[in-house]
Amino acid sequence: MAFILTFLGKGGSGRTTVAIAAAKKLASLGSRVLLAGQDPGPAFGLLLGISPSPDPQEISPKLAAVQLLSTVLLERSWEEAKELEAQYLRTPTLKNVYGQELGILPGMDSALALNAIREYDKSGNYDVIVYDGPGNFSTLRMLGTAEILSWYIRRFRQVLSESDLGKALSPFIQPITSAILNVSWSPDDLSQEGNNQGTQLLEEGKAALADPNRVAAYLVSGDDPAAIATAKYLWGSAQQVGLTVGGVLLNQAEATEAIASEFAPLPLTSLPSRTGADWQSLIDALPDFRQGAQAPKPITIDTANRQVRVFLPGFDKKQVKLTQYGPEITVEAGDQRRNIFLPPPLNGQPVKGAKFQGGYLIISL
Amino acid sequence: MAFILTFLGKGGSGRTTVAIAAAKKLASLGSRVLLAGQDPGPAFGLLLGISPSPDPQEISPKLAAVQLLSTVLLERSWEEAKELEAQYLRTPTLKNVYGQELGILPGMDSALALNAIREYDKSGNYDVIVYDGPGNFSTLRMLGTAEILSWYIRRFRQVLSESDLGKALSPFIQPITSAILNVSWSPDDLSQEGNNQGTQLLEEGKAALADPNRVAAYLVSGDDPAAIATAKYLWGSAQQVGLTVGGVLLNQAEATEAIASEFAPLPLTSLPSRTGADWQSLIDALPDFRQGAQAPKPITIDTANRQVRVFLPGFDKKQVKLTQYGPEITVEAGDQRRNIFLPPPLNGQPVKGAKFQGGYLIISL
Repeated sequence: MAFILTFLGKGGSGRTTVAIAAAKKLASLGSRVLLAGQDPGPAFGLLLGISPSPDPQEISPKLAAVQLLSTVLLERSWEEAKELEAQYLRTPTLKNVYGQELGILPGMDSALALNAIREYDKSGNYDVIVYDGPGNFSTLRMLGTAEILSWYIRRFRQVLSESDLGKALSPFIQPITSAILNVSWSPDDLSQEGNNQGTQLLEEGKAALADPNRVAAYLVSGDDPAAIATAKYLWGSAQQVGLTVGGVLLNQAEATEAIASEFAPLPLTSLPSRTGADWQSLIDALPDFRQGAQAPKPITIDTANRQVRVFLPGFDKKQVKLTQYGPEITVEAGDQRRNIFLPPPLNGQPVKGAKFQGGYLIISL
Repeated sequence: MAFILTFLGKGGSGRTTVAIAAAKKLASLGSRVLLAGQDPGPAFGLLLGISPSPDPQEISPKLAAVQLLSTVLLERSWEEAKELEAQYLRTPTLKNVYGQELGILPGMDSALALNAIREYDKSGNYDVIVYDGPGNFSTLRMLGTAEILSWYIRRFRQVLSESDLGKALSPFIQPITSAILNVSWSPDDLSQEGNNQGTQLLEEGKAALADPNRVAAYLVSGDDPAAIATAKYLWGSAQQVGLTVGGVLLNQAEATEAIASEFAPLPLTSLPSRTGADWQSLIDALPDFRQGAQAPKPITIDTANRQVRVFLPGFDKKQVKLTQYGPEITVEAGDQRRNIFLPPPLNGQPVKGAKFQGGYLIISL
């Protein structure tokens, strides 16, 4: 199991440069590092000084780099899906369609990258995976997939199993989910609460994200108001997907008290500019990313005091909406919705009150 | 029908600033303009000097602004989907699930934004829609959706209609596609070639994208090598989705001959920096965006000479892959695949040869 590290910040703040420097630093300290860039453009290779490939290649001792390409990943997943389908369906539908002709639809990039990272993580070849996404929200949506997909399955399982659509779809659930997630899923899954392979995969994803020793993000910002406001917004948005933010990296900017107060209690680190091929001063200035585990947890459920505490820095009260239409509590903020499934005895209880205090949404049941 | 204008360029190159200036300019020239920003963060509002809302609000004469929020759009689509489902299914499955609790999965942002733009376009309220996407590839994937989804439908219609899965899914195609695309789709659509509403919608989307008087992009770049290389790559990538690129905007950089030769035959425009609330010098420097229609077309099919010419600037020969596994020709470049459906008499003909010349991939049949 690897430590997965990513960076969020306004476009142009230097996310990719910092990701490369972080990968170099962690490799120099002895970790086996995979640097995975998802933007298919040339900037990643230019900054890295190599021609990146869609398979990991060692670029220096203990440091491998990969440029995740959706066309390549989709082609491979398709071939696996065809094999799986042929095992499960009497009349395979996919065999006459070729992976080499499949176009990329919205959402596929994230699903394919997530699956690739999951497989690199499972391979045991890396201690750290540094992920450089194509944009903040695509990174957040990607990392939030397990949590949100779990909710959709939880919510729709009951509804679907009682419907005509559910009855019709049921025999096909396994090959379809196999094609997407590259795992087998038992055919009676719709009507089943249990621990099948698909649910387990999502639970593993959620558990990894909830553990700041497994997945963490750092904010990258300059000192201009738009960059700082964006970083604060991303800080809150990360909590909404359950992603711990470990600290703030001020790229070519001083760590002033004013900025520190915006991001308290996160530690601030000031980074020097990088000139040409000399990465060392930037690498030396980077913090110890494992310290991120000390940052506030996105969510705490206190059954004794019948309280749920959701850490939502960067938002003010007006930007956060709390609803309870369905069986769970829904927190809406930062163009995301988080559904909170409560353990007994809080499960199914109505919300009695809520307040916003010190960056926390405190919900009483 | 509105003219839809968007901007592509490396993060931090000033895409959003240029989009705002373009919207202001077009409104000042008399067009009714909608400026639609999709990044949910605070930068859009800070640059615009307003607190943006998820519904269009007039911010100056003839200029309205909207911040597309997936949570809001999904909630609305869900309510419409519930109504449609209740009309078509004997046992509605959706009625007990509330729009207010739905989370956002990867891909939903693009699908919802595309649908919102389509509806604003159809409303007749705007002459121009300036779209500021959350990232280059999310914009390209979104604009490519009609083309690629058409291919998936074309390719899988035959395959599916002969399969068990197709027979089982058939009665549910209409409510499902209604929920996503907000149009009704006739239930026998799987086995039908015809002009149903869903196919028509995709054809309209493809026709709009293929017409540079309806949809165009401009590249935004600085003069540093990574920004220029990224802009060139995006130029080629735009052709792959059939999006015409009208010109290059050099933000706070001189239009040198070296840069001009990189982007020939596109016109270059040098833009001054913007200081504080003074947008006028930036607005004055912007080109006439309607001139973009003179740029090279992404694809030309010459049946007389049995040639297909695909404009692919910014890529070299090694980065372009041509295959013919399925019934169509597939061009792979820039982490995208474009399937070319040929009219008779070229349809179904094998590729006899291909060469790369002056930025064009020339395929002989």
